[in-house]
Amino acid sequence: MSAPLPQPRSAVDDVLRRALAEDLGTAGDLTTNATLSTDATVSGIVVARAAGTVAGLEAALRVFDLLDGEVTATPEVADGTRVAAGTTLARLEGSARAVLAGERTCLNLLGHLSGIATGTAELIDAVAGTDARISDTRKTTPGLRALEKYAVRCGGGHNHRFGLHDAVMLKDNHLVATGSITAAVEAVRATVGHLVVVELEVDHLGQIPEALAAGVDVILLDNMGPEVLSEAVGLIDGRAVTEASGGITLTGARDIAASGVDVISVGWITHSVPRLDVALDLV
Amino acid sequence: MSAPLPQPRSAVDDVLRRALAEDLGTAGDLTTNATLSTDATVSGIVVARAAGTVAGLEAALRVFDLLDGEVTATPEVADGTRVAAGTTLARLEGSARAVLAGERTCLNLLGHLSGIATGTAELIDAVAGTDARISDTRKTTPGLRALEKYAVRCGGGHNHRFGLHDAVMLKDNHLVATGSITAAVEAVRATVGHLVVVELEVDHLGQIPEALAAGVDVILLDNMGPEVLSEAVGLIDGRAVTEASGGITLTGARDIAASGVDVISVGWITHSVPRLDVALDLV
Amino acid sequence: MSAPLPQPRSAVDDVLRRALAEDLGTAGDLTTNATLSTDATVSGIVVARAAGTVAGLEAALRVFDLLDGEVTATPEVADGTRVAAGTTLARLEGSARAVLAGERTCLNLLGHLSGIATGTAELIDAVAGTDARISDTRKTTPGLRALEKYAVRCGGGHNHRFGLHDAVMLKDNHLVATGSITAAVEAVRATVGHLVVVELEVDHLGQIPEALAAGVDVILLDNMGPEVLSEAVGLIDGRAVTEASGGITLTGARDIAASGVDVISVGWITHSVPRLDVALDLV
Amino acid sequence: MSAPLPQPRSAVDDVLRRALAEDLGTAGDLTTNATLSTDATVSGIVVARAAGTVAGLEAALRVFDLLDGEVTATPEVADGTRVAAGTTLARLEGSARAVLAGERTCLNLLGHLSGIATGTAELIDAVAGTDARISDTRKTTPGLRALEKYAVRCGGGHNHRFGLHDAVMLKDNHLVATGSITAAVEAVRATVGHLVVVELEVDHLGQIPEALAAGVDVILLDNMGPEVLSEAVGLIDGRAVTEASGGITLTGARDIAASGVDVISVGWITHSVPRLDVALDLV
Amino acid sequence: MSAPLPQPRSAVDDVLRRALAEDLGTAGDLTTNATLSTDATVSGIVVARAAGTVAGLEAALRVFDLLDGEVTATPEVADGTRVAAGTTLARLEGSARAVLAGERTCLNLLGHLSGIATGTAELIDAVAGTDARISDTRKTTPGLRALEKYAVRCGGGHNHRFGLHDAVMLKDNHLVATGSITAAVEAVRATVGHLVVVELEVDHLGQIPEALAAGVDVILLDNMGPEVLSEAVGLIDGRAVTEASGGITLTGARDIAASGVDVISVGWITHSVPRLDVALDLV
Amino acid sequence: MSAPLPQPRSAVDDVLRRALAEDLGTAGDLTTNATLSTDATVSGIVVARAAGTVAGLEAALRVFDLLDGEVTATPEVADGTRVAAGTTLARLEGSARAVLAGERTCLNLLGHLSGIATGTAELIDAVAGTDARISDTRKTTPGLRALEKYAVRCGGGHNHRFGLHDAVMLKDNHLVATGSITAAVEAVRATVGHLVVVELEVDHLGQIPEALAAGVDVILLDNMGPEVLSEAVGLIDGRAVTEASGGITLTGARDIAASGVDVISVGWITHSVPRLDVALDLV
Repeated sequence: MSAPLPQPRSAVDDVLRRALAEDLGTAGDLTTNATLSTDATVSGIVVARAAGTVAGLEAALRVFDLLDGEVTATPEVADGTRVAAGTTLARLEGSARAVLAGERTCLNLLGHLSGIATGTAELIDAVAGTDARISDTRKTTPGLRALEKYAVRCGGGHNHRFGLHDAVMLKDNHLVATGSITAAVEAVRATVGHLVVVELEVDHLGQIPEALAAGVDVILLDNMGPEVLSEAVGLIDGRAVTEASGGITLTGARDIAASGVDVISVGWITHSVPRLDVALDLV
Repeated sequence: MSAPLPQPRSAVDDVLRRALAEDLGTAGDLTTNATLSTDATVSGIVVARAAGTVAGLEAALRVFDLLDGEVTATPEVADGTRVAAGTTLARLEGSARAVLAGERTCLNLLGHLSGIATGTAELIDAVAGTDARISDTRKTTPGLRALEKYAVRCGGGHNHRFGLHDAVMLKDNHLVATGSITAAVEAVRATVGHLVVVELEVDHLGQIPEALAAGVDVILLDNMGPEVLSEAVGLIDGRAVTEASGGITLTGARDIAASGVDVISVGWITHSVPRLDVALDLV
Repeated sequence: MSAPLPQPRSAVDDVLRRALAEDLGTAGDLTTNATLSTDATVSGIVVARAAGTVAGLEAALRVFDLLDGEVTATPEVADGTRVAAGTTLARLEGSARAVLAGERTCLNLLGHLSGIATGTAELIDAVAGTDARISDTRKTTPGLRALEKYAVRCGGGHNHRFGLHDAVMLKDNHLVATGSITAAVEAVRATVGHLVVVELEVDHLGQIPEALAAGVDVILLDNMGPEVLSEAVGLIDGRAVTEASGGITLTGARDIAASGVDVISVGWITHSVPRLDVALDLV
Repeated sequence: MSAPLPQPRSAVDDVLRRALAEDLGTAGDLTTNATLSTDATVSGIVVARAAGTVAGLEAALRVFDLLDGEVTATPEVADGTRVAAGTTLARLEGSARAVLAGERTCLNLLGHLSGIATGTAELIDAVAGTDARISDTRKTTPGLRALEKYAVRCGGGHNHRFGLHDAVMLKDNHLVATGSITAAVEAVRATVGHLVVVELEVDHLGQIPEALAAGVDVILLDNMGPEVLSEAVGLIDGRAVTEASGGITLTGARDIAASGVDVISVGWITHSVPRLDVALDLV
Repeated sequence: MSAPLPQPRSAVDDVLRRALAEDLGTAGDLTTNATLSTDATVSGIVVARAAGTVAGLEAALRVFDLLDGEVTATPEVADGTRVAAGTTLARLEGSARAVLAGERTCLNLLGHLSGIATGTAELIDAVAGTDARISDTRKTTPGLRALEKYAVRCGGGHNHRFGLHDAVMLKDNHLVATGSITAAVEAVRATVGHLVVVELEVDHLGQIPEALAAGVDVILLDNMGPEVLSEAVGLIDGRAVTEASGGITLTGARDIAASGVDVISVGWITHSVPRLDVALDLV
Repeated sequence: MSAPLPQPRSAVDDVLRRALAEDLGTAGDLTTNATLSTDATVSGIVVARAAGTVAGLEAALRVFDLLDGEVTATPEVADGTRVAAGTTLARLEGSARAVLAGERTCLNLLGHLSGIATGTAELIDAVAGTDARISDTRKTTPGLRALEKYAVRCGGGHNHRFGLHDAVMLKDNHLVATGSITAAVEAVRATVGHLVVVELEVDHLGQIPEALAAGVDVILLDNMGPEVLSEAVGLIDGRAVTEASGGITLTGARDIAASGVDVISVGWITHSVPRLDVALDLV
């Protein structure tokens, strides 16, 4: 029933420590420290107040490990599970001071990541029956990219490149600087290692023949409607992976997918999706 | 035309350095390094693709200072400005490699914070003509609380407490532990310093007389409709600050405000608001 | 018999890790590593060589957790306890290398914090029988504010604001900039949240009527003798909290307290108090 | 007129950044931000309110560099200068917001370090005319050892070892573990490098012959009165450096020095000395 | 004549700050501080004492920026330049204290990275005339991977994957866990994004047909001699990139390259190459 | 059978965390996560593929503690042991994901440090039968000095100073600045503490009489052949420790040692020694 952490424990803990520092400052939890003894214990459950897909549960529960005082935090569902409103996600037992001091930090991370997983899962549903994958982008929240991309995977999506460092994406400016698609691809192939994929962003179909001749691995079809995408997919004809991108949301995703593109990359799932409503109920 | 940073420069830079590390990894910007010479320069503008309220512009532009290569980044509007779609927010001039390497990190922060300011400003408009203030909550993104609360101020909102450390908020569990509102307030007053405000969360109006007798400074009226809120405001009659909270969004805010409460606190503006669409256009 | 840590464990550990790094450098404990085997064990007690009030014991003992080698460190008194000279504060048992490597770091923190608690307790005794609270200031040692303010609480004192960020304190320069007390208070109330207390520093009694009319919450009576303070307390008559400040030490505190002020804030307890003499005796 | 920083700039800045974070939290300087415009400028002087010896002036002034806003901070005296009460130590000019936000952090560091330099200088005066050096100990404040030991030098003192890592100090436990002074010195000489000094702590004069035979470089005469010290100095007769230690303060130092010891090490100058009263006067 | 930093300035500076902290500790440069005034200036040149290929020059010179005191450091050659013994690499001018304090840290980094570039260039020469690329591995020094891989590029080599995170490499254990090459490749393709290359390590030629059928992008031919490699290249026949690996050094590289493999990856250039002898001559 | 960590655990862990971050980035171990379940376990041994001296084994095994998932790592030999090729150094048991994710980081550190220990041990063998000690230098890898100097000790060598901060080394520039050896030694003795050793680097024998008269503790004989060294040793005649330095490697060490010098310091063992070949074999 347990899920692995999306990153080395120390990286997750760094995120949580920063968040705890924001909440506790140098004075700590004024209210709790004044009203609850250090011996007081409490039981509680983390619940989903709305239906959605869970992500980051084990990570978020680690916050209680970072606080003074013994708390046992037991996940009841694995990351990636689709849950109904009212589902118990985890059980907490232990020091009341630690539970109350960590509550908001835990929920903020869990709600944020589960919101991303939920939005991703909705997109997956929207394109069900097609062959299109849903992919994220680099439009993530500063400091949370690893966790947000993990949440996308929890929701059933796939990850686009993690940054500027793990794949090549040639855009207008790179083409202008080198003079042509061919020259740009040559410059890149001469420089980067043999384990780096080369993607090219195209704005119109006229660029596709040169792209294929230059041997790009992936073609990003930017801001095109379903019909133009269909035509592009036909032109490319399996000689490169096809990716559609540009302002795609839940409503338009299915038509885009029906065009036959291999991948649909969507910024919305990381930059604008609402959180999942999660709460801590003490019992 | 310039706006001050919301935090000491080093704190803002820490956020940006983490985000840059996510994007650049250890290999750097593979594409740009392979296609653009270190001497290449570029001019560009940061533009708002949609109407909204700007927040974090100077902070986001600092990313170019943290990269190798000279870039001059000049804000064209101050934080807090309401802009139309298409407005130029800043001008960039300098090393093409640095501009391209920093672009996404800059936009991610600016879009996120401006989204919060924009949502806040919409709420401010919604309650225009009433005396109610719009306030944020502690439901912020891990690691970004200071910047997000700054963005709320840019949008015209006010800040609730910054954490568990700078004000007292008595909730159910604290009352249960101490036995009564009176006992809880006494325990808190005996412990915390004389510069700490005491707020009490109440679930029903029957708690108000004891709250006032105990001398709380602020009463949080949790999850109450406009009519109950009106009644509460009447009961309290200026003897404590009144705050409404609980799932409030754009649609319901005006009615809540009309009830006469002093403050409306809204989690939505930090945990679920969409980003403002901003982009970098090279010229 | 145990006392809670004053901060999240990780914040305390950061202080201790910096101190350990100072003491161990990159070469480690040259003497111990050359003369004691890794298997050697030792028993010892932490003792107070002078009478005083203990603060930071659990925090200081954490140093042994951060070193290689098993050490069991058991507090014998709780933070806040007044102890006679010769009292055993804690027992240590375990790796001799770890005990000797951590000894000085442990004692430096414990002696420093207990010195603060002891000085605070002496002030509390000095004003016994009056209603005045003893409060600290922002005159703390760089990097140790949270722990020092905790030590003040251990000594029976209360905390003033923790920094510039959690309460408003209007001084001369703010009044000059805004034009008047009234204008300054208005500017502040319009800007800060509803959970922020507003304190005003006054140099002479003539400022009090405007201060009260402007609705400040707390009036700081700066550098006034007992008689002027009495007069001020009479003038204010419960309409604001009264605080005396300015070069107050043990000798003058009782007369200040007898003036009827609510709070006496004292920089001496954090910036100039001698440490409590504590030592580690091996047995 | 300027003095060098006691550490690489980045190490000093780390101390200051931690202190600024304590003071500014995530909300910043609430009072100043609400009452002073970002354009406001101010002039001020840092003054010594009491006579003393200055230490850490350039270091403390760096705080204004770390804040947003231009401030010119010019030292008027060099570290190590003995100043009368009322002496101007530095001039500040620039952003009012930055000056006010940095004031307390600057003064806390400067007052603390100058207190140490002042106490050290008083001890130097007390032993004037003898050949004894005044030395510090490892009884420093966690996180500030490098700066505090620098302050000791500013006051005319010398530094004892900086930690467990840069010299050997054999104490009781090491002797017990190895069986004898001779065995302990042999164990150490066999292990440590040829650039490490070996000091031995002795409790009674009977240990001195073996110590000299074993070839220790320095003998620490622990907790001995002037007469016993004289006898020890005679016994040792220049064959090792002699150091007196143990609860020495201003009053007893001269008699200790007159015994002929080479070095007097004093914990008081770092763990219990009062700060020097310094202030910022705006003009 | 200048070369760009291989990473964001802040990442390079982190490496240098750690190295400076090692060298300066808390006491600083004892010798220089005792013998050279803060005003003393010096001129010097960084020279190569042996022939080699330069890497990390701009990075290493940054150390002087991180120290107190003005130093102008001017590179005379660009990274990647092959230089003869005796070549001046850079000129230094400024504070004698800063130059001497930074000298060793600068040279240690420059010598280490230039050693890697030099070893790489020797391998490039060894395979000149063939189509084989020289690639690094993940066998790098902890904490220096980005800089070491940059040095490989300076020497004319290419980078293999930067870590476990930016490409797939299927080895024995992954095949055992999934049951077959086919199953392993399917599992990977189903999970990772469309911008991730899949490499398979094979121990014998019998695995190649299944590998090609499964559609791997790169085949790592592990520990095979030139003849077996030739056979493998023939079998694969351009349907996957071929890479030879396993204990390859200068002497054997040419024969390996002649086998027709696309890439030769060599751990030696990062884990066992001697540094380039560089020195600072003051004039 | 276990060996102590060479530094406080947190310092070792910092090195390992940086290395893990390099290898895992934000995406983690793509291959393993796609092919091995979170439940999969594995057994393995760390083996030496070549003969050598082990260093850093416990430190390197800590990497598995820093990863998510339970791994039991048991050293089979102590640091400092000379092992034959094929020797099992440690046994691993536990989470397959954690073992595979940590493998390279563990081996990189272990191979690097054991390479240093092995090279040191070879030098020790080369000078066997003489009284000369083998010492390291400050020519270490940035960020790894403490661990590398520990590895030198594991190999049987001794440590030279750890940095500029723990001993004085007077070189040409210091002599030029002060005017003479005598003046330089006086300046240093007047400034540094009584626990600091003073070493002088001499280029020719003519400097020795003044050095001895000035009372230096150690004389560094720079770049001299065995005969000149013999003459120097005779001249010095036990009145200072003698140290030979300058480009010494395995081949020349014995002749140098035979000259009678006390210490031979060798940069090669830290800056140019090949790693020891170590591997992880899964069973």
